[in-house]
Amino acid sequence: MPAKKEAMVGIDMGGTRLRALVLNAQNKILGMHRAPTNPKQKTDRLVSDIAAVVQAAVQSASLKVSDLRAVSIGVPGAVDAVSGMVYHAPNLGWKDVPLGSKLKALLKVPVFVENDVNVGVMGEYTLGAGQGASELVGIFVGTGIGGGIVIGGQLFLGSRGAAAEVGHIVIDMNGPLCGCGNRGCAEALASRTAMERDVRDAIRRGENSIVLKLMQERGRTRMTSSIIQRALKEHDPVMVRVIEHAQFCLGILAANVVNMLDPEYVIIGGGIVARLGKDFVTPIRQTAYQYFLRRQDARRVKILPGILGDDAGPFGAVALARRRLGDKRAN
Amino acid sequence: MPAKKEAMVGIDMGGTRLRALVLNAQNKILGMHRAPTNPKQKTDRLVSDIAAVVQAAVQSASLKVSDLRAVSIGVPGAVDAVSGMVYHAPNLGWKDVPLGSKLKALLKVPVFVENDVNVGVMGEYTLGAGQGASELVGIFVGTGIGGGIVIGGQLFLGSRGAAAEVGHIVIDMNGPLCGCGNRGCAEALASRTAMERDVRDAIRRGENSIVLKLMQERGRTRMTSSIIQRALKEHDPVMVRVIEHAQFCLGILAANVVNMLDPEYVIIGGGIVARLGKDFVTPIRQTAYQYFLRRQDARRVKILPGILGDDAGPFGAVALARRRLGDKRAN
Repeated sequence: MPAKKEAMVGIDMGGTRLRALVLNAQNKILGMHRAPTNPKQKTDRLVSDIAAVVQAAVQSASLKVSDLRAVSIGVPGAVDAVSGMVYHAPNLGWKDVPLGSKLKALLKVPVFVENDVNVGVMGEYTLGAGQGASELVGIFVGTGIGGGIVIGGQLFLGSRGAAAEVGHIVIDMNGPLCGCGNRGCAEALASRTAMERDVRDAIRRGENSIVLKLMQERGRTRMTSSIIQRALKEHDPVMVRVIEHAQFCLGILAANVVNMLDPEYVIIGGGIVARLGKDFVTPIRQTAYQYFLRRQDARRVKILPGILGDDAGPFGAVALARRRLGDKRAN
Repeated sequence: MPAKKEAMVGIDMGGTRLRALVLNAQNKILGMHRAPTNPKQKTDRLVSDIAAVVQAAVQSASLKVSDLRAVSIGVPGAVDAVSGMVYHAPNLGWKDVPLGSKLKALLKVPVFVENDVNVGVMGEYTLGAGQGASELVGIFVGTGIGGGIVIGGQLFLGSRGAAAEVGHIVIDMNGPLCGCGNRGCAEALASRTAMERDVRDAIRRGENSIVLKLMQERGRTRMTSSIIQRALKEHDPVMVRVIEHAQFCLGILAANVVNMLDPEYVIIGGGIVARLGKDFVTPIRQTAYQYFLRRQDARRVKILPGILGDDAGPFGAVALARRRLGDKRAN
């Protein structure tokens, strides 16, 4: 008798790597596989690379792809979850790629596609820091700043599927230029990219900082979260000042989100939080509470670090697939 | 046989006046009454004044209060809609006033209490510019800036009932001080109060403007919407520049709301819009579309002036009461 198809593969697809987890119906990790992504490849090659990662992950769980109930993938870009179409994923160089149908043709199992941050927020909501909330907003800080909104226990996508772009909420209308072409978006002030710009500017102005030296030592061209962590540990004055400014901006962003939606939880996630944890979030929370319009019961809104780290994406992708498949107790 | 109780009274309570409409089940206006509010009175006196306005309104409709199915009132402050408690209404000088139960004791009909802007947004949603939307955000510009959110056809209140405080979304973190104590809130940049401050500052710096003269002529101490309208008609250069700046800020605010919630409609309402209509909203829309993260289909999000003017509040109050009473086709 064949086993009931209940295992799923959840994939987080970043600009630099793919991470796949095989989960059983109780969200136990049965297997996993990681691989670098090469965005310069042709689309079909990249899709077959994803299929190979799924293969390797199920093999590590002693399963076959045909044993899977579904594969669910978070993609860094604008997607149509219903059709599985990726409209635009700048970090992958993708435009209008029918990822869902291409991957389904290769794997012959149901495939779900969603935005990577939505998927990460869903992970923290169903299995991480946001469990039990009815309304939740996630703010994920990395190269950019992305978000996800849960309302009434469901991912809220908006009328065009363009909701939760919290990184492009303007908080400093005369502030620095953003990649989107406007000025003063949260992403232009508090993403890791913005922090690196501020550190480099300070060094260029003659301030002392070990950040560039750390990057050289580690052969990095970008200021990664682990370099930030190390520089803070060494009390690098530029890094300390830059991160405090980013935290202040993220506090204002969190308050903007709360003054708009008044959720029960705001979860701060992403690579920096995976590294720095609550030390990164505490000052954000303090600023946010000061910027709430209703301050007398501010603490009823929990502002918490994500706890799933790199697993938020794969876990959330699977949770979302379960909901889309209509599972009753989907988490 | 007594007539079926289907008429309702909807009331919009401002800091300066009360406006009550008597509506039948088809939202036909059967009667109305207006009266000034005197916030300096004691609470019980103000509540009996509201009851007297209801009395006068039903009389104008040749009805009795006992003919009413319900009375529904929008109050300028933080309320608990379930208990009918007004927590805090600074313009009325109220703190913890059980308006619902007090008014019910006087009138002996069901009484519903809600925030005035929520009620106005509900009016535009059910009977005004936002009809047919599933997700809608209202931004009401007056002395302050308030908001309301409709999600899935229902007013969205948030976990503490503190949602939709769009006036306190920070868009210029180094900007002018707001009444709430923070800097750069939309209200501190684009409310009528902010515009008046900017006009007075410009005059103080020696710029020529007819605004103060218009205020003197009309015996006004404040720059009302009709004075703004007149000054614009006279091409007053200070007024033109100040309103253009406010419109730019409101455009950024509208885009922040869309980048967050991606609703189908953003309705711009309030006193200034009642006066200036689409001329006020067109530049706001242009700026907003530029600040959407997803611009290729920006026009799918409608940014429209409210069309109900002063009736938005009373209409919305009644619509909300119908929903709370569980009417199936509640609008």
